[in-house]
Amino acid sequence: MAERILLRVPPGDAPGSTILVGDDALDSFSRNEEIGPWLEGRTAFFLSSAKIRSLQGERLTALRSRAGTPVDLEVIDGEAAKRIAQAEPLWEEMLSSGGKRDSRLVTFGGGSVGDLGGFVAGTFLRGIEYAQVPTTLLAQVDAALGGKTAVDLEGGKNTVGLFHHPRLVISDTRVLATLPKGELRSGLVEVVKMGALLDFELFERVESDLDRLLDAESGDFPATMAPVVASAARAKCGVVEEDPTEKGRRRVLNFGHTLAHALEKVLRYDHLRHGEAVGYGLLFALRLSRRLGLLDEASDAAGALDRRMARLLRRFDLPSLRDLRPELGDDPVDALAEAMARDKKATEEGILWCLARGPEREALDVRIPPADVRRELAAFLDDPWGSDIL
Amino acid sequence: MAERILLRVPPGDAPGSTILVGDDALDSFSRNEEIGPWLEGRTAFFLSSAKIRSLQGERLTALRSRAGTPVDLEVIDGEAAKRIAQAEPLWEEMLSSGGKRDSRLVTFGGGSVGDLGGFVAGTFLRGIEYAQVPTTLLAQVDAALGGKTAVDLEGGKNTVGLFHHPRLVISDTRVLATLPKGELRSGLVEVVKMGALLDFELFERVESDLDRLLDAESGDFPATMAPVVASAARAKCGVVEEDPTEKGRRRVLNFGHTLAHALEKVLRYDHLRHGEAVGYGLLFALRLSRRLGLLDEASDAAGALDRRMARLLRRFDLPSLRDLRPELGDDPVDALAEAMARDKKATEEGILWCLARGPEREALDVRIPPADVRRELAAFLDDPWGSDIL
Repeated sequence: MAERILLRVPPGDAPGSTILVGDDALDSFSRNEEIGPWLEGRTAFFLSSAKIRSLQGERLTALRSRAGTPVDLEVIDGEAAKRIAQAEPLWEEMLSSGGKRDSRLVTFGGGSVGDLGGFVAGTFLRGIEYAQVPTTLLAQVDAALGGKTAVDLEGGKNTVGLFHHPRLVISDTRVLATLPKGELRSGLVEVVKMGALLDFELFERVESDLDRLLDAESGDFPATMAPVVASAARAKCGVVEEDPTEKGRRRVLNFGHTLAHALEKVLRYDHLRHGEAVGYGLLFALRLSRRLGLLDEASDAAGALDRRMARLLRRFDLPSLRDLRPELGDDPVDALAEAMARDKKATEEGILWCLARGPEREALDVRIPPADVRRELAAFLDDPWGSDIL
Repeated sequence: MAERILLRVPPGDAPGSTILVGDDALDSFSRNEEIGPWLEGRTAFFLSSAKIRSLQGERLTALRSRAGTPVDLEVIDGEAAKRIAQAEPLWEEMLSSGGKRDSRLVTFGGGSVGDLGGFVAGTFLRGIEYAQVPTTLLAQVDAALGGKTAVDLEGGKNTVGLFHHPRLVISDTRVLATLPKGELRSGLVEVVKMGALLDFELFERVESDLDRLLDAESGDFPATMAPVVASAARAKCGVVEEDPTEKGRRRVLNFGHTLAHALEKVLRYDHLRHGEAVGYGLLFALRLSRRLGLLDEASDAAGALDRRMARLLRRFDLPSLRDLRPELGDDPVDALAEAMARDKKATEEGILWCLARGPEREALDVRIPPADVRRELAAFLDDPWGSDIL
């Protein structure tokens, strides 16, 4: 079974995205009649990496067979794929193999393949339609949804790109079964983030099902994961529809990401997966929320949001921040504060924080004096789990 | 005096473009109050070439002085600027000099600088607002308007880009006074194209004022040119508002461009300026229009559109197509037909021609059997002015 979620953006313009989530989404949709007009008779580019093709390539067979002229494009694996130098040969190959304005592109991979593929599709002949077939949990619940595409510069990640919504997102939870546990955990942190501020039932589902959601070898896994992916996708789509280009409400998705991006950058994108960094970012955002008196202590019988978050994330077994301390340099507070100030989401007027008041209650665009942030950061690095304030 | 034209696109989304046309548009708008919120207190990147800065740089002084932190960016001159390899150091420099989502970019140059700058602005941090200050007639009446941005690939021109509308276009006709006559002629062909199908009074104004419009040294030149640029801009904006992403009506602007792009490509972008190639493209499109019986013979007392166009373009002194014959290779018909089939505006179903029925009456998306096109092409190359059919 596959669940269908519609994302309509931007208002009055493009047809938006159709998102299909399920434990056999690829097969059932590839047999579907509506895929015909989108693929049949057309040149379609299938972008993937050698590793993904060898692990999961056969899952794409049914979809690929519907294209008029399928053309395989290959990129290197991981974040290194997200460079202009990787995009350029793809555009040239698309042009020389007959790509036209009504050709299609299908990405098959994790967030990096999707980000690169969306950027390439969004700029080839000023934009061709494309589909995302995400193969990581992080990509299924976050990266593949909402139209953000990007490549990296020397000076920063995701600094060159555009908004270009995929016409289709096919999130098949069976392809997640070959992921390492760290990848599942990393994706589930993003689910927890969305659950906390957008759908608290989803947060509670992760609390109760965490062990089964991390057991990819169980036969039930694709079916257990499917409703979690679907709820996260619905939560994200709701926010994106409201604010497709992140001028306002969409910033709620940045919860936990201000510190996370800085941590990743200072650690040179090593040592922590994105979702693991977001885990620490969530703890820090909740620390700031408490310090500013934003958190509603009594909102929930099970305790305030920061305590519940800390209890849940404890079970994720994140790499220890204390162990990573040497990697953060001589003055970690300085390095992280500097990286946050240069974050691409910072404006000329400084960092706009997304903090929390309680379950499903965000506090957007909070400005905090830099000295206060540095003081909290120092305390946080000594005790990220907040036993000093909880 | 500067005339103000508003371009509202896309429906219900971005604020669109404000276009200011006049013989002192730069000075009068730079003193204007409304430029303040757009530039003051912000980092603003001014993209130009060394040549343009040396010829016209001082005209930008007043505008530049309004920016909080002006940063100059330099590109090489001409079409060679429109490469990904030229864009990458610009993005890096913008990032390292503190560019943020609310920073601004201002292009100051011809179509190449504008196309590259629009692409860089449209993709930097997924898009920052920008202004175009076009310094060629072609850019003022066409390239700077309508949000098309692009760079070139080995495989073709304008093949990587996106739609990103400038917030402002400042078309100051005084900056045109240093252009060589060939540049003025090239721009006026695009004016003639828009006049023919969108505003026949504009076509007739070029017919009557051509000599003054080509006399850049006359003191009246900026004032004579200003209403022509304004009418062309209004004509183009009307079409773009109707169809911002060229899914339908905007294709009327492609009148004359199917053969023009092929001519430019086969001539390796040498020998003919863009507008000069469009001149021949217009004659060929009108030849096809007549052959297909589309042209309304009696629509106008001054003769059918193809005859009037030929009479007017004769006065433009275009480089002779016969002299260029050796440059088109052993089989020019084959080379041009092949180039047209690979044009990026071709669809999987072939070339969609924009032809004419008469003044202000286009025939859109006409399909013509390739053999017929080749036959007409052979006749056209022998006699582009159509004395055989007129």
